[in-house]
Amino acid sequence: MVVELISVGTELLLGNTVNTNASFLAEKCAALGLSLYYQTTVGDNFNRLEETLQVALNRSDVVILTGGLGPTQDDLTKEVAAKVMGKALVEDTHTKERITEYFNKSQVKTITENNWKQALIPEGAIVVDNNNGTAPGIIIEENNKSIIMLPGPPNELIPMFMEEIYGYLNKLQPEIIYSQIVKLCGIGESTAETMIQDLISEQSNPTIAPYAKVGEVHLRVTAKARDEEEAKKLIKPVVKELKARFGNNVFSTDENETLEEAVIKLLTKNELTLTTAESCTGGMLAARLVNVPGVSEVFRQGFITYSNKSKRKILSVQKSTLKKFGAVSEKTAKEMAKGGVFATDSDLCVSITGIAGPDGGTEEKPVGLVYIACYINDKVTVKEFHFKGNRAKIREQSVVRALTLLRECILDVYNK
Amino acid sequence: MVVELISVGTELLLGNTVNTNASFLAEKCAALGLSLYYQTTVGDNFNRLEETLQVALNRSDVVILTGGLGPTQDDLTKEVAAKVMGKALVEDTHTKERITEYFNKSQVKTITENNWKQALIPEGAIVVDNNNGTAPGIIIEENNKSIIMLPGPPNELIPMFMEEIYGYLNKLQPEIIYSQIVKLCGIGESTAETMIQDLISEQSNPTIAPYAKVGEVHLRVTAKARDEEEAKKLIKPVVKELKARFGNNVFSTDENETLEEAVIKLLTKNELTLTTAESCTGGMLAARLVNVPGVSEVFRQGFITYSNKSKRKILSVQKSTLKKFGAVSEKTAKEMAKGGVFATDSDLCVSITGIAGPDGGTEEKPVGLVYIACYINDKVTVKEFHFKGNRAKIREQSVVRALTLLRECILDVYNK
Repeated sequence: MVVELISVGTELLLGNTVNTNASFLAEKCAALGLSLYYQTTVGDNFNRLEETLQVALNRSDVVILTGGLGPTQDDLTKEVAAKVMGKALVEDTHTKERITEYFNKSQVKTITENNWKQALIPEGAIVVDNNNGTAPGIIIEENNKSIIMLPGPPNELIPMFMEEIYGYLNKLQPEIIYSQIVKLCGIGESTAETMIQDLISEQSNPTIAPYAKVGEVHLRVTAKARDEEEAKKLIKPVVKELKARFGNNVFSTDENETLEEAVIKLLTKNELTLTTAESCTGGMLAARLVNVPGVSEVFRQGFITYSNKSKRKILSVQKSTLKKFGAVSEKTAKEMAKGGVFATDSDLCVSITGIAGPDGGTEEKPVGLVYIACYINDKVTVKEFHFKGNRAKIREQSVVRALTLLRECILDVYNK
Repeated sequence: MVVELISVGTELLLGNTVNTNASFLAEKCAALGLSLYYQTTVGDNFNRLEETLQVALNRSDVVILTGGLGPTQDDLTKEVAAKVMGKALVEDTHTKERITEYFNKSQVKTITENNWKQALIPEGAIVVDNNNGTAPGIIIEENNKSIIMLPGPPNELIPMFMEEIYGYLNKLQPEIIYSQIVKLCGIGESTAETMIQDLISEQSNPTIAPYAKVGEVHLRVTAKARDEEEAKKLIKPVVKELKARFGNNVFSTDENETLEEAVIKLLTKNELTLTTAESCTGGMLAARLVNVPGVSEVFRQGFITYSNKSKRKILSVQKSTLKKFGAVSEKTAKEMAKGGVFATDSDLCVSITGIAGPDGGTEEKPVGLVYIACYINDKVTVKEFHFKGNRAKIREQSVVRALTLLRECILDVYNK
């Protein structure tokens, strides 16, 4: 089955926004075994969108449109799709109620007349509720073709796609595609790929495809079969082999589980409490941990100690350490981690101190130098990293490596 | 003049790579005043690429292709372009020399037979040297149309574009586009649009286009003119009018300035130091502030007080407050902000406490209820919010609203 993506939005044509929706949807379509040959981006222009949609419908079975479902005059995806499919736009009572409800709960925003535009739906279309915004998703089915319209903001599109559209697309398929993910941390893409080159070359069904993420490698094992049971049977020995080869580098085989979730799970299982002590990442590590619902059982407080004074005052880093070795040093990282445990009576503390740039680097301590330490059971482990990239990238890599070190240290002590 | 982008690469269709080249090129084309109506992504497939290029050439003056210039068999952008333009591929001595030179300088790589494929150029084409790789850029000019082929890796494409292609495109142009942004916070998109509906309807040059971001609205004012000076003249009164209508809601008119940068600038200007005290956002606010280089002058430490105990111990929130009003209350938010100032001797503290969900909500205190307080000059301001969406969205909105409140409180006291 052939699917095609159309991204709608003048902000994409002006380069204001990077189209992350396209790569997200493309990856999910690949996971579903759908053939995706074209992605097109067009602006908020009726005629050009109409023409693009016509071309896409002629050559593909499913067309996914993203964006242009907002309340303003220049949002016209729905209007174009309705015209192309010969449908009238009618007010959907259910959606109108949801919009009213949304605004009643929001004290910031007030309903304006143009908001009701979002309650207009092409006649006979399937309405997909939006739990994170006011624009519902819309599916029009006609002559064995489907047009799927999704809201543009990724925080609305992603949950809607995962909750509703993924299953919808899978059901359209004649042959079942089933895939499982094996998520690795603490290993690079090239190394991982080399370790399974024989498996990648040998296999045609299931296939193994590696995806590099920041500090992680995801291996997607995908099988085609008549039914899910048969596909699972094909996948099982491959996943087993991957687990055997990568051992503790495997942190999850769950599609939705993040590295921070895996770490929180490990902490919860071992009834451990954690503190964070961050310098250059300034709260990013804590923020990622707090992404996980139920984190409060194991993570109760964290510190951002950006200045030397705060490292001393809050985490009891010694003045002499800062003077002799500097704030970005193995010794400071160690003392930060130890200080975090003692300040809060937690079981563990992970600390990060480094030079995220663009300024502050020297010959001896260049931008990208980061020390990460973990204190557990009176023992402190520290690692030195040299990250590449800009400020944001260095900080992001630091956070992933801190989670990875945290995981390693817990596994080291508790081995479960 | 109309330009069109074609991104070539199966990795884009599989979602392995986010297409940042498209947004980079789109932004530059907008800055050059080129009209960009379509961006298309196709895989490494001869027929589909040929068809896509034909369609693009029929409707646009300039077609920029990225990717598919590598040495392997599946790289075929050049081959397709040569066929479409009826040109033979001939070996370019200059490029062959450069490739040899490149490999001589590289200790890692050795020349293989397929590398010479990169020295083949369509007859009569302009060769653009690649200072960061082996694939040269290629320009084919014919019948007032230009095909520009650029290498896919951003670290090769970006310098080549800025050094050679930007100037090339500028010379093709009879007329320029110039745009300016007006960034708003503390106001919703619909409200903002309603407030300037008359301006939007009236104007054709310059145009005003609103973009909704989380907690922000960006208004882009764009003018077409013979030169930059004239375009600026057209834009000036419109920007002035927008500033007058939105007053303190305008936090920046700088293309690259973020809300956190505007806030840090305000703190720096008034020589104020800031502390953060976060509960449900768990470090996200601090992480956003620390995104700004040079933040260390005004932001030295922050606290993540997720548990009641840490709120008491670190921020001196009263036991009776937590007992009587709960952790998510106006009073707790106020005491957190006050406690943050006193714990660190800062001038300001902004605090966030709320229910980000999915669990923890009650009838009285539903998911999405967030209190944000700001303490400055012995005065504490607190606001109650009811945010919609999932955990991530509630937290993201909380952070933007905290930055907005912080900004309001500083402006209130210092009015500059």
